[in-house]
Amino acid sequence: MPFNKITPDDISFFKTVLEEKYVLVDEENLDRCASDQTEDLRYLPEIVLQPGTTGEVSAVMKYCNDRMIPVTPRGAGTGLSGGALPVHGGVALDMKRFDKILHVDKRNFQVTTEPSVITQVLQEHLKTDGLFYPVDPASKGSCFIGGNVSENSGGPRAVKYGVVKDYVLNLEIVLPNGEIIWTGANVLKNATGYNLTQLIVGSEGTLGVITKIVLRLITAVKHDLLLLVPFRSAVEACAAVNAIFVAGITPSALEFMERDALEWSMRYVQSTGIDLPADIAAHLLIEVDGNYMDELYRDAEAISQIVQVYDIGEILFADSHEQKQMLWTLRRKVGEAVKSNSIYKEEDTVVPRAELPELLQIIKTLGKEYGFHSVCYGHAGDGNLHVNIVKGDMSDADWKTKLPEGIRKLFAEVVRMGGTISGEHGIGLVQKEYMDIAFNDVQMGLMRQIKHVFDPNGILNPGKIIKS
Amino acid sequence: MPFNKITPDDISFFKTVLEEKYVLVDEENLDRCASDQTEDLRYLPEIVLQPGTTGEVSAVMKYCNDRMIPVTPRGAGTGLSGGALPVHGGVALDMKRFDKILHVDKRNFQVTTEPSVITQVLQEHLKTDGLFYPVDPASKGSCFIGGNVSENSGGPRAVKYGVVKDYVLNLEIVLPNGEIIWTGANVLKNATGYNLTQLIVGSEGTLGVITKIVLRLITAVKHDLLLLVPFRSAVEACAAVNAIFVAGITPSALEFMERDALEWSMRYVQSTGIDLPADIAAHLLIEVDGNYMDELYRDAEAISQIVQVYDIGEILFADSHEQKQMLWTLRRKVGEAVKSNSIYKEEDTVVPRAELPELLQIIKTLGKEYGFHSVCYGHAGDGNLHVNIVKGDMSDADWKTKLPEGIRKLFAEVVRMGGTISGEHGIGLVQKEYMDIAFNDVQMGLMRQIKHVFDPNGILNPGKIIKS
Repeated sequence: MPFNKITPDDISFFKTVLEEKYVLVDEENLDRCASDQTEDLRYLPEIVLQPGTTGEVSAVMKYCNDRMIPVTPRGAGTGLSGGALPVHGGVALDMKRFDKILHVDKRNFQVTTEPSVITQVLQEHLKTDGLFYPVDPASKGSCFIGGNVSENSGGPRAVKYGVVKDYVLNLEIVLPNGEIIWTGANVLKNATGYNLTQLIVGSEGTLGVITKIVLRLITAVKHDLLLLVPFRSAVEACAAVNAIFVAGITPSALEFMERDALEWSMRYVQSTGIDLPADIAAHLLIEVDGNYMDELYRDAEAISQIVQVYDIGEILFADSHEQKQMLWTLRRKVGEAVKSNSIYKEEDTVVPRAELPELLQIIKTLGKEYGFHSVCYGHAGDGNLHVNIVKGDMSDADWKTKLPEGIRKLFAEVVRMGGTISGEHGIGLVQKEYMDIAFNDVQMGLMRQIKHVFDPNGILNPGKIIKS
Repeated sequence: MPFNKITPDDISFFKTVLEEKYVLVDEENLDRCASDQTEDLRYLPEIVLQPGTTGEVSAVMKYCNDRMIPVTPRGAGTGLSGGALPVHGGVALDMKRFDKILHVDKRNFQVTTEPSVITQVLQEHLKTDGLFYPVDPASKGSCFIGGNVSENSGGPRAVKYGVVKDYVLNLEIVLPNGEIIWTGANVLKNATGYNLTQLIVGSEGTLGVITKIVLRLITAVKHDLLLLVPFRSAVEACAAVNAIFVAGITPSALEFMERDALEWSMRYVQSTGIDLPADIAAHLLIEVDGNYMDELYRDAEAISQIVQVYDIGEILFADSHEQKQMLWTLRRKVGEAVKSNSIYKEEDTVVPRAELPELLQIIKTLGKEYGFHSVCYGHAGDGNLHVNIVKGDMSDADWKTKLPEGIRKLFAEVVRMGGTISGEHGIGLVQKEYMDIAFNDVQMGLMRQIKHVFDPNGILNPGKIIKS
């Protein structure tokens, strides 16, 4: 169905729903909402609307639905798959005013929040009440919790604590036709009808606009220990990941970084805190947490024993808050560091954990075959490896035509191993061309029809996930 | 759409797909598939089919879909909401031959299994490999893992380890039109398209027939401790539940039993192992588990301190395997014991945990108002309270007309508290009349349309979840 362009009449209507200052057509705001953190992509919306209440979102959606005006919801714009890009123009629905933590239910370990609260702000607010929301994407200092729900985000702690979907109990959403519903109930167990909540989590803003989120919380553990283990072989580092789990230990983080990742990050944040001998090929950053220090020391000791089997350098035990912070900063900044270095594409491969060594070898072999350099890092404990492909001196022609062939081959291998093409970044715009590798026509047909159930006119975040 | 009755031609076709011994029309088999564990309900199918391969399921489904013959999948028949009852006759799709554990992936902590493996058999099989699938419905000794997935089952350990949905990674299902798909990938994190896996979990066999299940597993912890705490006030027992969590302790089970529940269960299993003084109104059965005994003793000590605030009797610390077994048997047999006592209805209320004391008071008040006696027990740590309403000397007329009004009132209160009408038993046949309390027309409309996407002819397990 063809979309309509926004007219002066539409703008007049929006000004009856929202105060004038929240109806924006200036270049700066249009430009701000034209991109996210995905490569160097840029798609201008025709207008930016900043609703402040669920009722306002509802009025905007109903109007746009009736008039075939595309609407692209936008959070903090930290997405890595182009989910917030208004590829068909229309309305950028800037949710920034939904920035209130509505209710911390200390008795029930739950929080009700609006979507545009920064994840770290939410976590720190909850911490003052002794409550813990553990999911911590690398961008936690700037991303919004609503975006996390939309993408089913993960992060380092997912390996022990799970991803966003494991914490969302209930969502208030506005459907494309303007109807407002809750998807579930505020309970830990629910066997009442189809799981609409889990259908919305990870649906990348294509089925409804999230306006309230109810999360379950846990109590924070009291202690943690952090180890940095240098390996002379990156493949051995990947193999060690599984050995730790097989020994019955569940770390609270188990991160893999190729040498380049750590080196570039150190340069990016101008850190000299870590000694990086020339023969070190990769690191594992391993955290254990719990309420009793003696237990953690036992776990750390067991991990040290396990990694001794491999060809490793000297293990760094981070014993001060500052040292832990430094290591985590280096890990969190890898993505930005790589981006600052070159044009790049970031793939978000995920496989069953024990297949990581094979995955890494395949990536490097494909790199040689297709002429790309990759920097690999990520949540190894979950089998989730980020593959940052840097353009470097690859020709524009190869970057545009040859590289996608290499990526297709990589994804085909990932699927063959029982994995899939995105672990936590979502499909959005940039991965939808590859969806046929993960899903056949029957599966895609079901997804297409589910989209149609929620959004029969196809106006909500069009052009994402599913190829039209 | 009107369904068709099964004809001799249909039977001939089924005999081309299945060996003759798996096409059953004898009274004994029809009768066996006419009921489950839900009240005393009985609906005869016209035929029982026992496919042994996914291809056979596919052929049967395609045929029935083309001919508008209703198909009701059946596992072990232990359901408590009538999900396996063939209320429109037609085919009872008896999945009992899907009873093989296909592959234990020790490296990746995953198992691929067919649906008709008894849950406890699966658990014990995995245990020999040091792997742990923790979800343990009370009926684990007889229920099938496929039924657990269909109902999103819980059980005592859900409070620490989560419910079925937290372990299902991927499902092979046969759609009503005979198409065979996998719903996801064998990975711990997945942000690739809509979450079809989570949509199928808990959909009670109304969207597709599950033929293979991939579960994530964890490593078993080494130790556990079990405490039985008697309370002189049932409401205080409910209040103590929350106090334990607020203190930062997460038990591996936290079960509530009203006096009647334990007393009836003791009589039912002819146990004299527990002293039950006249002034005890309820018990909490509390388990903690972990890898280090010293930690468990600390947790048990902390719990003992917390419950001292209430009016309690003497705490029983189960210190032998036999004593633990005895206590768990008593807990697991409560349902059967109540059923053996009287005609009954079992409600499966769930609320935010801290609202349990209020819920219990409301149940008792409504009991007085509507003249019913209830025996309450269940997974208090999850806020999931089973309310067994026993008919006792209630008149047939009141049982049929007055009681449903009382249940409506109870469910309305549950929803007001942020809860919902089923925590783990599902909606199936017997709760669908109450779905309007949990969901409005918009929400039900979405569910109806999702059903239509998967099953446009409405032949798969018709008459369940959604009122026609």
